Amino acid sequence: MTKAIQDFYSDDVSHCYGCGRLNEHGLQLKTYWDGERSISRYTPRPYHTAIPGYVYGGLLASLIDCHATGTAAAALYDLEGRSYDSEPPLRCLTASLQIEYLRPTPIGVELEIQGRIASVEGNRVSVACSILAGQIETVRGTVVAVGVPPSYLAKLAARAGQ
Amino acid sequence: MTKAIQDFYSDDVSHCYGCGRLNEHGLQLKTYWDGERSISRYTPRPYHTAIPGYVYGGLLASLIDCHATGTAAAALYDLEGRSYDSEPPLRCLTASLQIEYLRPTPIGVELEIQGRIASVEGNRVSVACSILAGQIETVRGTVVAVGVPPSYLAKLAARAGQ
Repeated sequence: MTKAIQDFYSDDVSHCYGCGRLNEHGLQLKTYWDGERSISRYTPRPYHTAIPGYVYGGLLASLIDCHATGTAAAALYDLEGRSYDSEPPLRCLTASLQIEYLRPTPIGVELEIQGRIASVEGNRVSVACSILAGQIETVRGTVVAVGVPPSYLAKLAARAGQ
Repeated sequence: MTKAIQDFYSDDVSHCYGCGRLNEHGLQLKTYWDGERSISRYTPRPYHTAIPGYVYGGLLASLIDCHATGTAAAALYDLEGRSYDSEPPLRCLTASLQIEYLRPTPIGVELEIQGRIASVEGNRVSVACSILAGQIETVRGTVVAVGVPPSYLAKLAARAGQ
């Protein structure tokens, strides 16, 4: 994939703080999927610290969250045998997030977030992720992402607008 | 507690993006502990969105992360029967984070993060947390936080400075 999965999202669902291309304050994570594995890259800002010299754990959880939901969406499109810009759009929301911090993640280097599909049950996709700093795995995570239809997103949007 | 646990942290460990009072870009979360329960409050910024109208899951994970490590530190001080500003300082790092998103969290309201100690085994403290929007629980999480001695933090700082 030469285009990130998030670049196929329509404008109205591109405001996510973690991966929305229209959120100017956000992380703007981009997930590239080759049909088997996904990769994102992100260099934490100098202020994304936990203790001095190391990356904040909440940011690392955020990177895994968005990388996994993007990966899950791409995999569901593939399973349905259709292109990422076909209608109706398919988005994934996070049901649960499990993160293990294996060792402190050094700040000041580009991180690589890797993902692969662990299981699919209906619209529930489990994605296994790792974060690497240099060649060293510092964080491991599993996300259960749920594919939701546009009607559900529209219902939520209507409720938020009330 | 009229002072937040984070306000007892020394300057050199007060740069955490989630709860460091000296991180001007961060969330500056404040955890208040009464010996049995802890509470933090945070109002997400308008750009902390997932889909429009709802709070980004990575931010919610971050709030639970910092609330839990602060709660764990306070509980360990209590177990040692000493005041929060006594020497040597005691800090907790996150070993693992488990988050369940029960329902979408509406944006635009102050969130309450609640914590209680689930178990303590040596220096490993398990903290159970909930996030409430209004009176409704939207997120539940468990964090395993590990109390680390100043010598460990100093070793990490030295390695980061190399």
